[in-house]
Amino acid sequence: MIEDKNPQRTSISDLGEFGLIDHLTKNFSIKHKTTVKGIGDDAAVLDFKGKKTIVTTDLLVEGVHFDLSYMPLKHLGYKSVIVNLSDVYAMNAKATQITVSIAISNRFPLEALEELYAGIKLACDIYDVDLVGGDTTSSNKGLLITVTALGEANEEDIVYRNGAKPNDLLVVSGDLGGAYLGLQVLEREKQVFQVNPKNQPDLDQYTYIIERQLKPEARKDIPELLKKLEVKPTSMIDISDGLSSEIIHLCKQSNVGCNLHEDKIPLDPQVISTCEEFDISSSTVALSGGEDYELLFTISQDDYAKIKANPSLTVIGHMTDAKEGMHLITRANTKIAIQARGWNSFKGNQA
Amino acid sequence: MIEDKNPQRTSISDLGEFGLIDHLTKNFSIKHKTTVKGIGDDAAVLDFKGKKTIVTTDLLVEGVHFDLSYMPLKHLGYKSVIVNLSDVYAMNAKATQITVSIAISNRFPLEALEELYAGIKLACDIYDVDLVGGDTTSSNKGLLITVTALGEANEEDIVYRNGAKPNDLLVVSGDLGGAYLGLQVLEREKQVFQVNPKNQPDLDQYTYIIERQLKPEARKDIPELLKKLEVKPTSMIDISDGLSSEIIHLCKQSNVGCNLHEDKIPLDPQVISTCEEFDISSSTVALSGGEDYELLFTISQDDYAKIKANPSLTVIGHMTDAKEGMHLITRANTKIAIQARGWNSFKGNQA
Repeated sequence: MIEDKNPQRTSISDLGEFGLIDHLTKNFSIKHKTTVKGIGDDAAVLDFKGKKTIVTTDLLVEGVHFDLSYMPLKHLGYKSVIVNLSDVYAMNAKATQITVSIAISNRFPLEALEELYAGIKLACDIYDVDLVGGDTTSSNKGLLITVTALGEANEEDIVYRNGAKPNDLLVVSGDLGGAYLGLQVLEREKQVFQVNPKNQPDLDQYTYIIERQLKPEARKDIPELLKKLEVKPTSMIDISDGLSSEIIHLCKQSNVGCNLHEDKIPLDPQVISTCEEFDISSSTVALSGGEDYELLFTISQDDYAKIKANPSLTVIGHMTDAKEGMHLITRANTKIAIQARGWNSFKGNQA
Repeated sequence: MIEDKNPQRTSISDLGEFGLIDHLTKNFSIKHKTTVKGIGDDAAVLDFKGKKTIVTTDLLVEGVHFDLSYMPLKHLGYKSVIVNLSDVYAMNAKATQITVSIAISNRFPLEALEELYAGIKLACDIYDVDLVGGDTTSSNKGLLITVTALGEANEEDIVYRNGAKPNDLLVVSGDLGGAYLGLQVLEREKQVFQVNPKNQPDLDQYTYIIERQLKPEARKDIPELLKKLEVKPTSMIDISDGLSSEIIHLCKQSNVGCNLHEDKIPLDPQVISTCEEFDISSSTVALSGGEDYELLFTISQDDYAKIKANPSLTVIGHMTDAKEGMHLITRANTKIAIQARGWNSFKGNQA
């Protein structure tokens, strides 16, 4: 759909790979002292001066992870950076650099790539990270983006998935389920559009959840907040695949169990009203929806007083002995085993 | 072609993403002290202890960078690591870690991915690097691999592209043109096979050049050798796009010119004989062929005595003032301007 909207089209092949990279990255500036050498050599050179280096990578594939019929390219560029930064913050670390590799078919004009890079640049500016390298190549079909994010942390600050202890509190940032519901609204509007292209969708009542899907944010503020509050989580993970899947990761790697309280799961009013409209359970959406990019972590009960007044953080349960298993305590006070029903790109979303 | 050859097929979707990653990476071991945490958390944690961190990334796309009708998956896994390590060595650095992200369509069974990872593991073992992360997802079409390589170096050892001075000697490792010619042989045999599938190709006389294409090596040994010889290049680049393209990079970034001597370009006898068979100029093949993954560097004339006896290294020219331009001095002693005719994935190979 991109090509029809855009009256100006410049063929990528006219620029060549090096001309293309130069063109797309010329407005990016280097902000970090740790970036010794960015784009323009065989490799980037970074200097973490004795701090630990954090590395993570994610791949986004057209038709699997995004649909360009409702995902603007600028948003896609932004989101592809965000999903990686979220993994760095989940280590309780500071994100500092990214590399971006793109495979793109000839159906995209240069202007489409410029939109994509405008979103990447916006994310770099807002999240204070340097673009230091990458690769741009053609694909036979569609668009594919790989981002690698690098970060830094003092050894004593890094939080892994495996440090949760029984009786630790389970805490989540922000609210859950919005990104998945936003996707459901967008998919519905796409189907309406396919039946009647003249129909004008009214999406005003879904702005929050659509933004959660199309332009998510990563919780850069949470490691900073925790530092200020003098709280070091015992374990942490980001919520990319749904709350239940992430809880299972923390429990298995920490060798603990968990009691999660359904009535504590933070939900935006728009999530609740849209769940009613779609006739689905808001808890199911929060547990299995994914793509919220909130942080899920455990803290010692001793730290509860430090976090309890904070509007960004909600205690949703506590960890138990491993032998007690992983359970959801429902509003009706029944116990249900937590099962992973998150995203599996090889099967499609099962939520 | 993969699915027809392989009698045993396990569907990738049965394992799920995490099961798949566990399955594919269970035989990988961590070898480096710099790897604090590898696969299994939101991100890897590395510790370069005050050394500089080197980062580079490359994307390989089926149908653009490789053809699975003659590229075995194990070789492809191996090569996808090699092309990235080569960029680390081109910084005069030591490669230490990689991440591997793969997008793969459902047409591939698990056994195909196992082959791919067997090649990745072989490269990790031979080149002494740790696999520390990655992503595995489905694609709508074909196979795509992104590798990010990390390395380390002392600040004083790093060699950029921009340090060449007039009168510096231009030196290349190994020999050139083999990888491109190997591809020509494989493409010819593929066409023969399509016309007559019963034809048995006799590739004995092409073993070296086919190996250069299908299973290239990176010059890990060259930074080590240069250290031993106490030679620090003034500039360095790896030859992925063809000699002429890389010379232009060094000249432009160093603001120098170059005289390259055609009769000095190192060629394997198999390259010479195959060029005669295909009736193409061996110099053209070396200048424009690409994918040789040799290192091209410049050294001060003062260092000539240290390298002259080494069979891995050949002096092929010298740098000049920028205003003298970049020239090939032919065997007939005429001067021709060097032009970039290397690989451009958006246009196809122009060699």
